[in-house]
Amino acid sequence: MQRVTRFGVSLETPLLRRFDHFIGAKGYANRSEAFRELIRARLVEEDIHHESTPALGVLSLVYDHHRRELEGKMTDLQHHHHTSIISATHVHVDHDNCLEVILLRGRVGSLQSIANSLASLKGVKHSKLVLTSTEKSL
Amino acid sequence: MQRVTRFGVSLETPLLRRFDHFIGAKGYANRSEAFRELIRARLVEEDIHHESTPALGVLSLVYDHHRRELEGKMTDLQHHHHTSIISATHVHVDHDNCLEVILLRGRVGSLQSIANSLASLKGVKHSKLVLTSTEKSL
Amino acid sequence: MQRVTRFGVSLETPLLRRFDHFIGAKGYANRSEAFRELIRARLVEEDIHHESTPALGVLSLVYDHHRRELEGKMTDLQHHHHTSIISATHVHVDHDNCLEVILLRGRVGSLQSIANSLASLKGVKHSKLVLTSTEKSL
Amino acid sequence: MQRVTRFGVSLETPLLRRFDHFIGAKGYANRSEAFRELIRARLVEEDIHHESTPALGVLSLVYDHHRRELEGKMTDLQHHHHTSIISATHVHVDHDNCLEVILLRGRVGSLQSIANSLASLKGVKHSKLVLTSTEKSL
Repeated sequence: MQRVTRFGVSLETPLLRRFDHFIGAKGYANRSEAFRELIRARLVEEDIHHESTPALGVLSLVYDHHRRELEGKMTDLQHHHHTSIISATHVHVDHDNCLEVILLRGRVGSLQSIANSLASLKGVKHSKLVLTSTEKSL
Repeated sequence: MQRVTRFGVSLETPLLRRFDHFIGAKGYANRSEAFRELIRARLVEEDIHHESTPALGVLSLVYDHHRRELEGKMTDLQHHHHTSIISATHVHVDHDNCLEVILLRGRVGSLQSIANSLASLKGVKHSKLVLTSTEKSL
Repeated sequence: MQRVTRFGVSLETPLLRRFDHFIGAKGYANRSEAFRELIRARLVEEDIHHESTPALGVLSLVYDHHRRELEGKMTDLQHHHHTSIISATHVHVDHDNCLEVILLRGRVGSLQSIANSLASLKGVKHSKLVLTSTEKSL
Repeated sequence: MQRVTRFGVSLETPLLRRFDHFIGAKGYANRSEAFRELIRARLVEEDIHHESTPALGVLSLVYDHHRRELEGKMTDLQHHHHTSIISATHVHVDHDNCLEVILLRGRVGSLQSIANSLASLKGVKHSKLVLTSTEKSL
């Protein structure tokens, strides 16, 4: 486990009171835990603006499985990028729709371009790429 | 497959030209395909502001696997909410970190509260919940 | 000025180092100052999800001023909502376009509905509403 | 006014029905008007990811006016960047707080760096920069 540094922070008392209330509502163990998450979220946000940041990606795609040719193209594309794709999980949502969640690993720029090529396939209804930087310090 | 309606749209010519360029860069088959995605994304955005919308959720969690007690708590929480959880996929990111991607199904409000309880566990470093509405018309 | 509370926070050393680097790059005076902003931003985000939160709004509208009837409608709408509108600033952007920035005060839900009615006027090209909660503790 | 092109779009009938409902609720005059806004919003989003895009910025700052030195620093900074700053509007929010809305014009990267230097001043509680690209075709 990583070494930990302890230091002091000053906050306006009413602001701290509201923050403690927020921490309680969200279920954090303590203030340090909540600070850690706020900081990490902010730094990850910075990191993923740079195309060369090493990252993990979670790409969610909702599509109409009646479009048989679509599944073939999705599989082809995934094989083409197999070095960046960790795994894919498939869910049968309802009579018409499927959810495919693809886990990716690579540089931000390359993950975005893979996500674009999958999201723009005919029959894909909705897509969202979530990126997390894998910088060691985070 | 669903019935399709065809209708006319008027756009300023330079704006349309830029949009065509965007469509090409992103790889959409044609304008209708790109419109469809823009509209769906906008409507999903509306839907998921309401706690009672039926939805799919993709929750990504990055955590430190050295915290043994954390994995136990994550499993307990997932079993507690097993009716909402479809599946979970696990990735060994590096020496310290794991990525767990949990697929969920339920009302927006309930998925958000499950995500909160997992994200606030001690040891979870980063989390993100992506919601997609499963309204039939989308 | 408000009373201040001082307390201790523990962070993993490499994470703290990266945060200090971020603080330096952004120009914050010290860690407390940066924490304060992170916390406030997070709490404001919570607040403005509730329609009844008292808030300030900054609505930016870009529109084509050749549409004369538009300016009349914008003025009418602003007068109709004059109790919520603090001021409006106008910028001549280029030969065709104007930027109008309208400052508003009221409940979140009411500011959103005023913004919708202005943003949907024919000739408005782009619009964005920024909300800040005015809760006393923030 | 700009030349307009008319063309056909195909959408699944239930999706179109929901979109028409959305258009009505938001108050758009017709489908073309709503499409125009969706497209512009999407293209602006693309544009403002590039540091060199010419843009307009609306920077909202909430701060505690009891910090006298802050107002001096804000004025100095604004004068320093006077070629990028179009205007500033000030609102007395309550006993403690002020809202300052600064309109800017310049390249995305430069507006972001001005916003950072103002947002990080001691006493600024909350800040938000909204960017709009001023590309001619939009």
